[in-house]
Amino acid sequence: MSNMIFIDACFRRPTAHTPIWMMRQAGRYLPEYMAVRAKAGNFLSLCHDPEMACEVTIQPVERLDVDAAILFSDILVVPNEMGMELQFIKDHGPKFPKPLVTDADLDALDMKAADKLVYVYDTIAKVRSRLRADKALIGFTGSPWTLATYMIEGQGTKTYAVVKKKIATDPAFMHKLLEKLTIIIQDYLCKQIESGANAVQIFDSWASALEESAFFEFSWDYMLRIAAHVKAKYPHIPILLFPKGVSGYLDKIREKGGNFDVFCVDWSTPIELAKAKLGDKYILQGNMEPTRLYSKEATKEGVEHIVKVMGKESGHIFNLGHGMLPDLDPENAKYLVDLVHEMTKR
Amino acid sequence: MSNMIFIDACFRRPTAHTPIWMMRQAGRYLPEYMAVRAKAGNFLSLCHDPEMACEVTIQPVERLDVDAAILFSDILVVPNEMGMELQFIKDHGPKFPKPLVTDADLDALDMKAADKLVYVYDTIAKVRSRLRADKALIGFTGSPWTLATYMIEGQGTKTYAVVKKKIATDPAFMHKLLEKLTIIIQDYLCKQIESGANAVQIFDSWASALEESAFFEFSWDYMLRIAAHVKAKYPHIPILLFPKGVSGYLDKIREKGGNFDVFCVDWSTPIELAKAKLGDKYILQGNMEPTRLYSKEATKEGVEHIVKVMGKESGHIFNLGHGMLPDLDPENAKYLVDLVHEMTKR
Repeated sequence: MSNMIFIDACFRRPTAHTPIWMMRQAGRYLPEYMAVRAKAGNFLSLCHDPEMACEVTIQPVERLDVDAAILFSDILVVPNEMGMELQFIKDHGPKFPKPLVTDADLDALDMKAADKLVYVYDTIAKVRSRLRADKALIGFTGSPWTLATYMIEGQGTKTYAVVKKKIATDPAFMHKLLEKLTIIIQDYLCKQIESGANAVQIFDSWASALEESAFFEFSWDYMLRIAAHVKAKYPHIPILLFPKGVSGYLDKIREKGGNFDVFCVDWSTPIELAKAKLGDKYILQGNMEPTRLYSKEATKEGVEHIVKVMGKESGHIFNLGHGMLPDLDPENAKYLVDLVHEMTKR
Repeated sequence: MSNMIFIDACFRRPTAHTPIWMMRQAGRYLPEYMAVRAKAGNFLSLCHDPEMACEVTIQPVERLDVDAAILFSDILVVPNEMGMELQFIKDHGPKFPKPLVTDADLDALDMKAADKLVYVYDTIAKVRSRLRADKALIGFTGSPWTLATYMIEGQGTKTYAVVKKKIATDPAFMHKLLEKLTIIIQDYLCKQIESGANAVQIFDSWASALEESAFFEFSWDYMLRIAAHVKAKYPHIPILLFPKGVSGYLDKIREKGGNFDVFCVDWSTPIELAKAKLGDKYILQGNMEPTRLYSKEATKEGVEHIVKVMGKESGHIFNLGHGMLPDLDPENAKYLVDLVHEMTKR
């Protein structure tokens, strides 16, 4: 038993209630976040400033009483420190003005990126020293595939045509890049743990861009390698994997196995299905549709369904099935947290 | 037996080979399409001109020898004829500058829209009179949910936050709109059939925006109602449903049943899974990842896998798992069609 309910739940140990946190719980829907964000100037400056990043990491824990904090940062700081210029353009999202095209571009990537992410480690150390002892701090990274997609497309994409053309015409290029990212991410997560992270989550936000065979070849297998590496070094640290939108691939995910603790379920995967396919092998985290938070009634209905399926016993961490939206009401978020705590009391 | 291999396949009758056509086969990857498009001026003018729309509908049949033509049109002509101004903005996609907000907006919608879509019926009549007799002509519509999404969001969206806020806070508004769309679409499809369409497909492109319970309540049930209506009137016309990205909901789709003929499988649903869950109840159409067409090698691998799973016997219509991309090579598309015909010869 640890003193953290979130960590106990990751290892299927009994807990007083089902723990809950929310993806993007530190974000624009919170006025106190917006205040710090305004002070920071731009988004990347906020990621680079451990004091302010620490502040926004802790805000939702204080306001909502969630059971875990998640490091405030961005998945794209990794490619940024690998030498790629990164811009955040208003109403457009992140952009790499010089996306990767040639093998020479790959050779130019800085393999010491994990050493340069000191502002992340400093943020983690600060948060851990100030966070209540019973609240877990979750570190995170983007998956190799999701980072590679941004690095090749240069920005968000609807069709993923550029990166998929690489898959169809030059898979060796993809594997070379994914290999580099895997090595850096392994190091990055270990350093986060050494700085005080109590758990780490790998976000594979673009998993759903890949058909089944490509998902395993270009994404999942690399995530499993990272998990195995971190697990070998830090077996007491839970590893959470979040491949978004892969409800069609659960049989094969089960069959493949893998040394991680928590499978994160997005809202497009029915929780019943995730439970039936993976619930005995992994703790499930998820998966309420975030837009239910637009109303208390829809929130209550969502919670009741998920709690009914997952039960009050161990095996479940409550979360949203995707990130908080900027125009959600913090009051409804608080209502959600209280409701889950109340309804799952053992 | 009909004289059309595509129609026979829709009813699981034996055919000489597996039929194939491609979503967006009439489109920007074809130079002959671009020539007509340039002549038309803008995209909507092309939809409005039966002569030119007929020409681009037939082009891919002539170049590629696919087994079916699909009407050249756009799903948004329906809301447009319901009274909503529609713009196509370069590099941005379609836009309704005045999206639906209030109940009064719903009351103002023109319920005679199906009567005004004469340019679509004229296109169908023209195509049917000129198309080779053994090639089927597929009519189509957007699903009520997908159209409603555009009408409420006003444009494409990543988060669907506006329409989902309606779902969470004012479901009655949604049902009122979906009801109106259902009535118009039923009429629209019947008129397409009366004009010469040999089959009709309902595209639910935004199905994947909905969690399971919402998908059935706000989309699938309306699609089944439309299918039942059309089927009662025209039992010899195959109905194809394409809810994109619902691999997690196949159990419930099976359980619900429904009077349609072909279930269209997108590329994110493994064809093995679709076959196991639905293959005995419905003909399956799909589902090669379109970006495989970037290379002949990837195309061949994709075809071999799908043909191996679906077999050479009846029960399958080959298609892509999503639309053709503008930068694909027509030569590879031709290679795909020939390969499927060759490999599935009985």
